[in-house]
Amino acid sequence: MTDFELHPRLLADTVEVDDLPLCRVRLMNDAQYPWCVLVPRRDAVREIHALSAEDQQELMREIALVSSVLAGLTNAFKMNVGALGNVVPQLHVHVIARFENDAAWPGPVWGKNPPVPYEESVASRFAMDVRRAIARDER
Amino acid sequence: MTDFELHPRLLADTVEVDDLPLCRVRLMNDAQYPWCVLVPRRDAVREIHALSAEDQQELMREIALVSSVLAGLTNAFKMNVGALGNVVPQLHVHVIARFENDAAWPGPVWGKNPPVPYEESVASRFAMDVRRAIARDER
Repeated sequence: MTDFELHPRLLADTVEVDDLPLCRVRLMNDAQYPWCVLVPRRDAVREIHALSAEDQQELMREIALVSSVLAGLTNAFKMNVGALGNVVPQLHVHVIARFENDAAWPGPVWGKNPPVPYEESVASRFAMDVRRAIARDER
Repeated sequence: MTDFELHPRLLADTVEVDDLPLCRVRLMNDAQYPWCVLVPRRDAVREIHALSAEDQQELMREIALVSSVLAGLTNAFKMNVGALGNVVPQLHVHVIARFENDAAWPGPVWGKNPPVPYEESVASRFAMDVRRAIARDER
């Protein structure tokens, strides 16, 4: 990945899933919500509108792919997609499976509850499930 | 717009800005944050990944356009983009200009403070500024 480096905060809060053509995909280490983060491998970019038109289009393709995969794996009631970056400046997009009985429903997940880390083997297995579903659905 | 109807909650909370090729653009009637909402004119769709690939690509183009316009008009510190829909099921995308001294910083705006409506003339003028900037920047 040449000189791309994941922001240390994103690295610490997530586990590895996959690299798509544009984004590094990570699983948020929070057992409260099935939650992926997509990080375009473009170091200096903070805003979606600052990506090239081509990267914007690829970002949308990858958002839709991960959203569909996560919805399918979890039978989510609703998917939440968000690019905030108020705390971590490196552009990243959250894709979160939401349920009517989850810990933050119907509010947003950000800033609500402290994360509840997965058991390590559970996180690894879920990350692998996501990676396989992506490989299956990617066209 | 044929038979498209804005969800009553979105209609009540916003003022008119413009129609882009895919989305109806509205200004959230909340003076705390410069905040647009993009609503794809596709009645039955609740999820980004349920849009056609063509609509997904157009949605991204319109998100980037409105984000760039709002950032330019307000000199925002950070743009927030989000599709939640936990409360209002009609697919809609928030594009919000954020500032380090705004009422919810650094948290998300959703569910934080009750809206503070604009004076009507202020909302109309701001909506017109956004419409003009969109017309200027649209390619």
